[in-house]
Amino acid sequence: MQDNWKDLKINADRFLDDFITLSTFGKSGETGVNRPALSPAHLEARAWFRDKIIQSGLEFHQDGAGNHSALLRSGPEGAPSLLMGSHLDSVPDGGRFDGAYGVLAGLEVLRTIQEAAIRLPFNLEAYDFTDEEGSLVSFLGSFAFAGLLTPGDLENPRGELQALTDGLARAGLNQQGILAARRDPHTIAGYLELHVEQGPELEKYGIPIGVVTGIAGIAFYRLSFLGRADHAGSTPIGERRDAALGASDFTLALRNLLLEQFPECFANVGNAHFAPGAFNIVPKKVTLSVEFRASKLERFEHLTTAVLRLAEQSAERYQLGLEVEFIGKRDPVGTDMRAQSSIQEASEQLGLRTMHMISPIGHDAQAIATLCPIGMIFVPSVGGISHTSGEMTHWEDCVNGANVLLQTVLRLAFRL
Amino acid sequence: MQDNWKDLKINADRFLDDFITLSTFGKSGETGVNRPALSPAHLEARAWFRDKIIQSGLEFHQDGAGNHSALLRSGPEGAPSLLMGSHLDSVPDGGRFDGAYGVLAGLEVLRTIQEAAIRLPFNLEAYDFTDEEGSLVSFLGSFAFAGLLTPGDLENPRGELQALTDGLARAGLNQQGILAARRDPHTIAGYLELHVEQGPELEKYGIPIGVVTGIAGIAFYRLSFLGRADHAGSTPIGERRDAALGASDFTLALRNLLLEQFPECFANVGNAHFAPGAFNIVPKKVTLSVEFRASKLERFEHLTTAVLRLAEQSAERYQLGLEVEFIGKRDPVGTDMRAQSSIQEASEQLGLRTMHMISPIGHDAQAIATLCPIGMIFVPSVGGISHTSGEMTHWEDCVNGANVLLQTVLRLAFRL
Repeated sequence: MQDNWKDLKINADRFLDDFITLSTFGKSGETGVNRPALSPAHLEARAWFRDKIIQSGLEFHQDGAGNHSALLRSGPEGAPSLLMGSHLDSVPDGGRFDGAYGVLAGLEVLRTIQEAAIRLPFNLEAYDFTDEEGSLVSFLGSFAFAGLLTPGDLENPRGELQALTDGLARAGLNQQGILAARRDPHTIAGYLELHVEQGPELEKYGIPIGVVTGIAGIAFYRLSFLGRADHAGSTPIGERRDAALGASDFTLALRNLLLEQFPECFANVGNAHFAPGAFNIVPKKVTLSVEFRASKLERFEHLTTAVLRLAEQSAERYQLGLEVEFIGKRDPVGTDMRAQSSIQEASEQLGLRTMHMISPIGHDAQAIATLCPIGMIFVPSVGGISHTSGEMTHWEDCVNGANVLLQTVLRLAFRL
Repeated sequence: MQDNWKDLKINADRFLDDFITLSTFGKSGETGVNRPALSPAHLEARAWFRDKIIQSGLEFHQDGAGNHSALLRSGPEGAPSLLMGSHLDSVPDGGRFDGAYGVLAGLEVLRTIQEAAIRLPFNLEAYDFTDEEGSLVSFLGSFAFAGLLTPGDLENPRGELQALTDGLARAGLNQQGILAARRDPHTIAGYLELHVEQGPELEKYGIPIGVVTGIAGIAFYRLSFLGRADHAGSTPIGERRDAALGASDFTLALRNLLLEQFPECFANVGNAHFAPGAFNIVPKKVTLSVEFRASKLERFEHLTTAVLRLAEQSAERYQLGLEVEFIGKRDPVGTDMRAQSSIQEASEQLGLRTMHMISPIGHDAQAIATLCPIGMIFVPSVGGISHTSGEMTHWEDCVNGANVLLQTVLRLAFRL
């Protein structure tokens, strides 16, 4: 088999069977999954993945951040590993494909190469990273893996602190273990991630494979507008300092800022918390969960400045205070040129057209890019829809993507 | 003493001592209390009130809705009761005076008349009604007392259903008991409520006693703007159906509607809930807690129509759906003319100036007005501030109000 590596394909039936089984953990409606990081449903999915690794005769590993991995010793003694991976957690009531597809494809590549008994110049590992979606910290697993996580990130998480504490307890994890989970870069040859696009571009152009050239930068803030709590039944409208007005003004103005000045960028007000939050009290404090993204570093910095200035203006307009809480950011990163060309050649060999594209969405690859060269493959999302149960990728595209991942691994092994 | 009733005054020192003690239950900060209905702190305050009634040699009663009362048998056998009352619950982190002041003043009037051994043509009762502030249902106690509460009100409460279930369990109450709590109107001669104004009018004019002529109508709605959950990192801003935009637009437009067309009315967006509520998902559904008030029935109806049309317009503007959930309302009510004149005469006799005024804020009296004639007395709120720990009424004004309440009771007993 060693010389016929170009004919090797994954076992599509086995891959589909596993995908269907995995989709039952945290099933939500007909087509969705609800697996927030370290929730009981997520831990059930992870336990199933661990069993699948062991049943496949692969080595199972778990690090201090709860990242699970399958190891195939396909290389010489002491060789570094080529990693593949993604995540099994989902957003609340999200889709089946986001993350789970890439994790299973990594496992399937390991099993295919194991069965073919092909020796590579490196070992292979398939990863499931913890909390990519950020129900708890966001990128908890891959950030810890890359040594980028600080104690502050765990003390001021993006989700509720109690949810993080509960989740870690459920998973048997602790802060000390998480902060010590950094992987030695000398043990890694590179990282490949296969993912559904979560956007409309590939479908729009009828192209089955996206070669990702870079991943957009993203920043998260909590912006609190500060007013005064008055009785809503006796304080005249014109005499209030109503925090909801600043928050509403900002929400509308943010949209206009993006449309007019940053049309290639993204922003979202995803949540709001009103305090004290009663029908009959003028809101004293409204806290918005705000994120924004840009694919070039300079634009990312300009956008950051513009968003924060906008919040100040909205607060001033209604005589409110403003509290800016920086939650975190990931700068834009580029993918490795050799990975890009290997993905493109693997696709051509399989008769699949490609296009080069930026990922506006963050992925574990973005954190791991600080440790080693990365490559990233996209397959089409029907209607560009993601982060809801309506997320869908045609099975044919899923199989194509997994075969491109397999062939990219083999090209990186056997072609210079 | 029977003929010297005009000289009778409450025991101001005892009244203050009790007020200071009561303010320790659920104490929040230096000057506030946090006693949402049926919370542990609220139940502690109620237990203290019950003990105080019994220690004072008065009869303690509790009905199926958890309303507590002190009974003084000051009238002939079989006579109806003149009721006084208010509520011991508070809004979250509210003030010490709102409600608690009126409950204690009622008790103090009973003790004063008991000590003076004055016989009246009616019995006297001092009530503490359950959940006036609406952490659970809003006016749960006085609505049940008036026979106005429906099973639907308990199944779809203004607060969280779980909070209601937990609260009822803590207090040993149940739905059956609540729905059977209606008091026979033939046993009631009337109802008087003494309350802090919670607005700036009395202080502004330097007048110590407000004679309330009517209580504004209030309506509560949950308005949900319905969009589509998309990935916030890949769906272009212009292609979203973002529920937060409709909600923000409505919040700002509501303010303008009131300023321009209903300047004498009140409205508030007191809370918002975003679903699914993640940083990286475009909000699919934003639910606003909205209330509004008007003191005349015709204006109340016009305002209702205008607010709901505004919500439809905001939804349409951003291509969103709208879900209108009616939570409840109380129509405007007027107070009894004889009660008004008795309050005014009692004040004049005590050398206290009065002004007639509408209460823009709802009170238990509004529910009880469906059973019997009502009267209502206001005392000044410093800065008009209420529903926060900054709420304050000078002690001299508190004592004046309680003496006006006492003398009003005696006037209703002895003057035609």
